[in-house]
Order: sequence, then C-alpha cells, then structure tokens
Amino acid sequence: MSIIDGYRCSQTLFTAVGLKLFDHLTKEELLLEDLANKLNLPHLPALERFLNACIALKLIQLDKTNKKYSNTPSSNKYLVSKSPDTLTGYIGHNSQSSYLLWTKLPNAIHENAPQWQKTFNTIHGEEFTFDSFYRDENTEALFMSAMHGLGLTCFPAVVASIDNFQQFKTFCDIGGATGCLAITACKANPNLQAIIFDLPRIEKHAVQYINQTSADIRNRIIFQSGDFFRDPLPRADLFTLGRILHDWNDEKCQILVEKIYRALPEMNGAILIAEKLLVEDKSGPVTANMQDLNMLVATAGRERTCPEYKELLEKVGFKNIKCFWTGTYLDAIIGYKSN
Amino acid sequence: MSIIDGYRCSQTLFTAVGLKLFDHLTKEELLLEDLANKLNLPHLPALERFLNACIALKLIQLDKTNKKYSNTPSSNKYLVSKSPDTLTGYIGHNSQSSYLLWTKLPNAIHENAPQWQKTFNTIHGEEFTFDSFYRDENTEALFMSAMHGLGLTCFPAVVASIDNFQQFKTFCDIGGATGCLAITACKANPNLQAIIFDLPRIEKHAVQYINQTSADIRNRIIFQSGDFFRDPLPRADLFTLGRILHDWNDEKCQILVEKIYRALPEMNGAILIAEKLLVEDKSGPVTANMQDLNMLVATAGRERTCPEYKELLEKVGFKNIKCFWTGTYLDAIIGYKSN
Repeated sequence: MSIIDGYRCSQTLFTAVGLKLFDHLTKEELLLEDLANKLNLPHLPALERFLNACIALKLIQLDKTNKKYSNTPSSNKYLVSKSPDTLTGYIGHNSQSSYLLWTKLPNAIHENAPQWQKTFNTIHGEEFTFDSFYRDENTEALFMSAMHGLGLTCFPAVVASIDNFQQFKTFCDIGGATGCLAITACKANPNLQAIIFDLPRIEKHAVQYINQTSADIRNRIIFQSGDFFRDPLPRADLFTLGRILHDWNDEKCQILVEKIYRALPEMNGAILIAEKLLVEDKSGPVTANMQDLNMLVATAGRERTCPEYKELLEKVGFKNIKCFWTGTYLDAIIGYKSN
Repeated sequence: MSIIDGYRCSQTLFTAVGLKLFDHLTKEELLLEDLANKLNLPHLPALERFLNACIALKLIQLDKTNKKYSNTPSSNKYLVSKSPDTLTGYIGHNSQSSYLLWTKLPNAIHENAPQWQKTFNTIHGEEFTFDSFYRDENTEALFMSAMHGLGLTCFPAVVASIDNFQQFKTFCDIGGATGCLAITACKANPNLQAIIFDLPRIEKHAVQYINQTSADIRNRIIFQSGDFFRDPLPRADLFTLGRILHDWNDEKCQILVEKIYRALPEMNGAILIAEKLLVEDKSGPVTANMQDLNMLVATAGRERTCPEYKELLEKVGFKNIKCFWTGTYLDAIIGYKSN
C-alpha cells in the first residue's frame, strides 16, 4: 500500500514547495488563518487538511499550545528556496517534468528510448540531446537549479572521499553547469584553479551562481564554453564528471573518458566521477534503481555499478581505480592516468 | 529523498501491473528472454533494468543460480489479476485516474473542489456526482474492480471486529457496488440475508461478482437498485456504509445516516461504517491523510476521526457507538438504534 501511495506523498511535497509553504514558515511560525492569507488560499478547511498531510509526512509541525505551524529542521535546510542546501529546484524539476514523463515508462521500456516527445510534444530528432531539458528558458533555469541543489547536498562528500585532493592544482568540471562541483572543489582545496566546461547557453547560469560566492572562490573559477563531444577540452590535472555519464550510452561514455584521458598530464592526472552507484547485482539501492529508470524515460543513459565504471575507465587506460560509497545521493569513482 | 522518489516507485508498480508481469510470473518462473517474449518487449536491456527496479522494490525476485524471475509471496497474493485478493483494479484506478488528478492538488486546495474537469475535461455541474468516476464503461468497470479488491483485503477484519455479528438476520449495504461487503458478511454469518443497494448502472457489475461465489453465498444476496439520497431504503437490521461517507460532506452524511436510522427496527438495529480512521489530531496515519487529500481532489468528501463519526451518529440518535482500528486499510465504526 505504501508503494501505491508514493505518488500522493510526492505530490503533497511538490505542492507544498510550489505554494512556497516552507518559505513562509521559515520566517515565523504562523496560525492557520495567517498562513491562508499569506498563501492567498480562501478555504481554511482545505488548507488545514493539506497541512495535516504535511504534518503526517513530517514536513512541518504544529504547536498544540499556540496553534502555530512551523518548519521541521530538515525542511528549513532542504525545502526553503533561499537555503544554501535547497532542493526546491530539484523538486520543481521532478514536479514539472519527471512526474509526467514517468507516465510513459511503459513506452520507454517498449522502445528503449526517452519519452519527451510523447509527453510534452517536444520536437527532437532520433538521437537524444539535452534540448528536451532546455526546451524553454524556465525549464532550463529550473533544471540548472535542480542539479545545483542536488549537487550541493552531495559534492562535499564526493570531494572528501578523495584523500589526495590537495595535490591537484588545476581542475576542469565537464558539463559543469552552475559550477556547484567547481565551487565545492575550490572550497575544499584553497590552491585549486577551476574551469567549468559546458555549452554556451549555460554560461549565464554559471555566472549567476558563481557570483554569489565569496571573492576567494569566484576569482579561481572561469567558464569555458564548448560541447564536450565536439570541442577540444582544456588542460587540467583533475577532470570531473558530475552526473554526466549516466546521461549517455556506453559508447559515448567511452569516447568522453578517452578524450579526458588524453587531455590529462602523464603525471598525477586523475578523473573523478560523481554518480549514484548501483550494487553489483543491481538490486538496489531503491533510489539508484529509480534514477536508472528515470534515465530510461529521460535520456539515452543509465546508472551503473562500480565494476562497470571500472571497466569503462580501464578500457581507455586509467589505473588504480577506486569507488567510494559516500552515503549521500551521489557516490565517487576515481581513476589515475599513472600509477 | 524517499518522498521525492515516491511517484517513481508508484509508477514502477503501476507499469508492472499494466504489463501483467505478475500474471506471467505466477504461472512459472521465467528467464529474461522468455519474459521478454511473453510481454512482447523487444529490448532486453530496458526490460532488465525495469526488472531490477522491481527487485529493489521487493515486487519480484531473481534466482541467481538458474537466472529465473519469480513473484514474491505478497505479489502472488495482491498483484496477480486472478488472485481472490487482487489489488490490480485498485492499482489500475490509481494509475489511470488518480495519478493525473493529483497534479491538480494545488487547484483543489485553492478551490476546495474536485478536479475531474480540469484533469480529464469531463463535463459536470457545480455539484460533485459519481459521473466522473463512471465517465466511460472502462473507467466504471475499473473503479468497481478497484473498490472490490480493496474491500476484500479489509472487510473480513471489519466484520470480525463486531462481536455480536451473528445476531443480525438481514443486512443492507448502501452503495454496495460489487457486493464485496455483502459477500464477506454472508461468509461470516451463515444465516444472513443481504441486499446490495446501489445505482441501476451498477447492477451488472454486482451480478458479475456475485455469480463468482458459491451457491450458498449468492443465493442469499439480492441487488436492489436505487439512489440512496433520493429513493426509500429497504428494511434491514444491519445497514453498512463501506467507503461511502468519505465521498460526501457532513451535511449529506447526516441526511444519509438519519435515513438509515429511520429504516432500522427499534430493537437490535445497527449501522456499521467501514472507513480509514484519522487519529484524533489528524496527524496520521499517512495513508489516511493521503486518502483525505485524494477525497479533496476527487470528491466532495473527506476522511474523519473516530470522534467525528461518533458525533455524526449521535446527532441522529445512534447509541453505544464504538470505533475499531482493524490494522487493515479500513477501520470499523458501529452504532445501535437502542441500548
């Protein structure tokens, strides 16, 4: 029964974020009537039922003495849109794109192909591209914010899993988008110079996010525009791929990691991959399997196991490859050009 | 993260039921290739990823020695369409109607009104009716099967919670649909004569389900057609309302229970309500809150607490009212006309 109810719990959360409930409750605790006014909702009984459901899901709490609603600590951290750890972008992306895309899961299984066209009438050719994610300005910005938020909750653990992280001097994040991995890396290593490498259309988003960091961080990050399959890569002694490989099939992944291998210096060059790892027999964790099916309905890619990433990297020459389960939504795989 | 992923888990289950995966695996355990043939799915890798997700959700299992997939015991019981305890109808209803209806939860909260029209372009007047559930023959049949399946998993516990159930001789289930409560009641009490009271269009469904029972049961059940708000009720010493009151507002509920009160004999007459109870402060259980919001997007009703049902029944004269938490998806509330 709890699996059947899953979509109802998701939609309750999506609706609460969409209404900006947590933004209002992070400033002050509020009575039902005051909350109704702030949210511009005229029907108190309907709002109260909705708030009860949010309480049942432990998203908010009600003080029975003063009858005021407030956020839980975890909602203040992840569900307030201005919080540095906010997941509201990721939730918005799930609510506005993925929720409907998943109604086409049967088609995706039948065709082994993404389902943007059937779901949203988007026009694209035979081959998967990111045009579907970027089908209009709002969707593009929401996807950026989604990936930024998710990255912020995971990348510190990814970077921390690399014990020789301080040895790197130059860093390039391929498909680096808003720069959340570059920012995290520069915070963790005060001598690092970072490049975000992504499509020209992404630059405005990256600039916006980087400008919000302190001068010490933003002065060490530059954006270099390019298509990572078509254009030459910059030079760097650490390349990162944060949630990039899971968008592509094995053939394209191999082309990309080989290109990175060649761009690395002979000595101390490394590649760091941030992805959610499936266990070896692919029977979990549930969230990785769900992300794998999300890749099936949305991209040409898939989630992989540690041995699969090892094989991919070994094939093009990487050595000393290790996987780290970080305990967050993203794990880490590192490989070196030389022993 | 697990709340965000909820809809993905739901859709994985919905898709597995839609593909009739569990029907195939209940007959025999199957290799990936054989399953692909039976399901007419040409892409083995896509199917395998989907099956891995089903394993992660514990819906199926894989024997690592012979590489064959099979159902878990719980899937055999609830997810096989011919199982007597099947929930496949309920799952189909959630998949085909409720999943999309819930995308309009923000509108439902804003308007305090059901959202069939906005979701499916159905035409209805200002007031909620069941025409939306019965908008075409398939949807009507699916809803019948949904309620039947859910009833079968819960009604035995509901009936068992009434310790003097053997005292009743005549029984009328208001809005009795497929007769699942009438069938359960006749099984539990061998002397009971039962009437299913529901709209004329429902009779064909009831007849179909009743004809599947043994002669001993079906000979004691009749269908009487009528609209429970407009037409006179039959005579019976036990009236039941199984998931009926949660479809309607307090005013209509009171009209209905008062009508039942009057139709009962002075001595030993009783009303039995089967609904999911909210705890007194309405902060759970989650599944009851989710059902409450489902009532908000789909009907004019709501889920209620034990004190709310007590008040509703006391107002029209019922006495000795008791609530029973059955531990299943439906709880029981009983009230008597005399002490």
